[in-house]
Amino acid sequence: MIDVIKPTLLLDKLKSFDNIKKIKSNLVNSNIELRPHFKTHQSKVVGNWFKELGVKKITVSSVTMAKYFSEYWDDITIAFPINILELDDVISLQEKIKINLLVDSYDTLEILEKKLRNKINIYLKVNVGYDRAGVDYDSDSIYSFISFANSSSKLNFAGFLTHFGDTYTSKSSEEIHDLFNNSLDKISYLNNKYPDFEISIGDTPSSSLVKKYPKFITEIRPGNFVFYDLDQFKIGSCKLEEIAIRLVCPVVSIYQKRNSLLLYGGSVHFSKDYIIENNNKCYGYVYHGDYWCLDNKIGYIKSLSQEHGIVEIEKKVNLKIGDKVSVIPVHSCLTVDKMREFYIDDNKFKIMN
Amino acid sequence: MIDVIKPTLLLDKLKSFDNIKKIKSNLVNSNIELRPHFKTHQSKVVGNWFKELGVKKITVSSVTMAKYFSEYWDDITIAFPINILELDDVISLQEKIKINLLVDSYDTLEILEKKLRNKINIYLKVNVGYDRAGVDYDSDSIYSFISFANSSSKLNFAGFLTHFGDTYTSKSSEEIHDLFNNSLDKISYLNNKYPDFEISIGDTPSSSLVKKYPKFITEIRPGNFVFYDLDQFKIGSCKLEEIAIRLVCPVVSIYQKRNSLLLYGGSVHFSKDYIIENNNKCYGYVYHGDYWCLDNKIGYIKSLSQEHGIVEIEKKVNLKIGDKVSVIPVHSCLTVDKMREFYIDDNKFKIMN
Repeated sequence: MIDVIKPTLLLDKLKSFDNIKKIKSNLVNSNIELRPHFKTHQSKVVGNWFKELGVKKITVSSVTMAKYFSEYWDDITIAFPINILELDDVISLQEKIKINLLVDSYDTLEILEKKLRNKINIYLKVNVGYDRAGVDYDSDSIYSFISFANSSSKLNFAGFLTHFGDTYTSKSSEEIHDLFNNSLDKISYLNNKYPDFEISIGDTPSSSLVKKYPKFITEIRPGNFVFYDLDQFKIGSCKLEEIAIRLVCPVVSIYQKRNSLLLYGGSVHFSKDYIIENNNKCYGYVYHGDYWCLDNKIGYIKSLSQEHGIVEIEKKVNLKIGDKVSVIPVHSCLTVDKMREFYIDDNKFKIMN
Repeated sequence: MIDVIKPTLLLDKLKSFDNIKKIKSNLVNSNIELRPHFKTHQSKVVGNWFKELGVKKITVSSVTMAKYFSEYWDDITIAFPINILELDDVISLQEKIKINLLVDSYDTLEILEKKLRNKINIYLKVNVGYDRAGVDYDSDSIYSFISFANSSSKLNFAGFLTHFGDTYTSKSSEEIHDLFNNSLDKISYLNNKYPDFEISIGDTPSSSLVKKYPKFITEIRPGNFVFYDLDQFKIGSCKLEEIAIRLVCPVVSIYQKRNSLLLYGGSVHFSKDYIIENNNKCYGYVYHGDYWCLDNKIGYIKSLSQEHGIVEIEKKVNLKIGDKVSVIPVHSCLTVDKMREFYIDDNKFKIMN
């Protein structure tokens, strides 16, 4: 076991493997491809686990990440409306591997047509209610995107890509199913109108729970499920036992009177996402004992500042200063991005490296 | 001007200089020393600006940060209750420079006494109402800390250190003054009881506004003021003109119908702190035109995900895809920590490097 002296991120490879297998098992008897989102781990090592389990195509959220993973993968979708200021990098990437772009603006199409050198797959980002990005699923403008691409020598209109982001704010697995079906109705409308294209969906909540997809779905792109986190547990996507990530933190002080602990572990380690439990903000569940054991939850992190984590003690335990506690973070993607390195067994790995 | 193609952090040296001078000017005619907190910038380059303006001692929030700055500074207070698992590093640091430690636990005192090799200054962390860390200001146990140190060959009890963290959640400059005075009453009680010790205070809100300190205050340790941010503007610590940091982000999409913009710039760039304005979450003010000009505010960031920033447009402007907008972040410390590099004029610098 590694000697933890400051906040240290641990991953459990076996749990991650099981999580990947679970998501894949939901796709058995379908033609749907799993194109996992790699923004959660940003790591070639974790990426290799997907390779071992037969995954061939991936999703990333930036051109920078595509450049990093292009050393190891040959089919990458950048699932963020393409930033035209990075087209030189896209052109270089195209020399090397298959790159698929996302667009949701007609102006961008015209710029791509003008600047790219070789043909590229584009997906239209479609908004089905999350209202973050994308063209509305029932917008008449969709036809103009397709027709522009059809008359272009550079752009191959591959299909529609959407993100059911609403599922992340669900309160239960029932609500996830409802939101999924609601979004699916809109996608179905789109597919009826333009039936000849791929349809890429995939958020962790619905990918974790949905066992049967309509035939028009061609791929799913969840990412977070490889580790899961407290947020996903809370909304019903996973069991606590499936969470494959821990942030181990030293106990720096014990405040009996205030019923709290001070951990060395703050917002520069966890980031700042929280869940609400019993009307309180919770930034992580805190366990004592073996880092992966779930038997001994002693409290939760009730506040975070830059380096401080304050634990509300729920269960009296024989703790002393210098002990280490194990925390299940609320949002694994941001915790990994903050920490920038993690351990698997005793081996340290850096992200994007 | 640098060629921004993805989220890019800019600092304005002149504004920072003015901010440092302002804080120092509040200390004229007092014997109070400014020991600025360097967790905000984590940079030797920015540290040098303080040197140029006569600062000789600094504050950091971790042993790691103390190691980094020990190359450039010879008197450092680690203003976080010392994590006993890092004592080997403290011992090495002591060989090189003067290190001052913070404690708020009797057990830690005993461990320091046993493990350290050379005498060290310790400050007792005192809680005056923020309830994050520290021994309560009126606790009888304070005497035992002093008396333990007095009988120790390793520990020099230098004084009391406290953080008026409540000021950060103030709603106005009046409230900052009220909270400051309220905390000062408690410190005064402490000083009456134990009059022979240093008293270190200092948060950015009160350090920015308070012009007159009681004589028993010996040093202040604000940090954020070197850049300020939207949070500090909102509570009344600074003017918008004083904010010395911008995150420049490319405009990736424009959604007329939803009255919003998509920026390449998300929680992995800004972190996740927000202010509330008109009952809405606001993650940053957004400007178009010259990066530092405040004349043309076009909206605010209303939501952030990993790479996405969604701007609510407040003012119609002739924007096009590929334009850059300039954002005043809500919390400069966390934005700097996330970005890990910044530009001053055309020169790039990395933090902790």
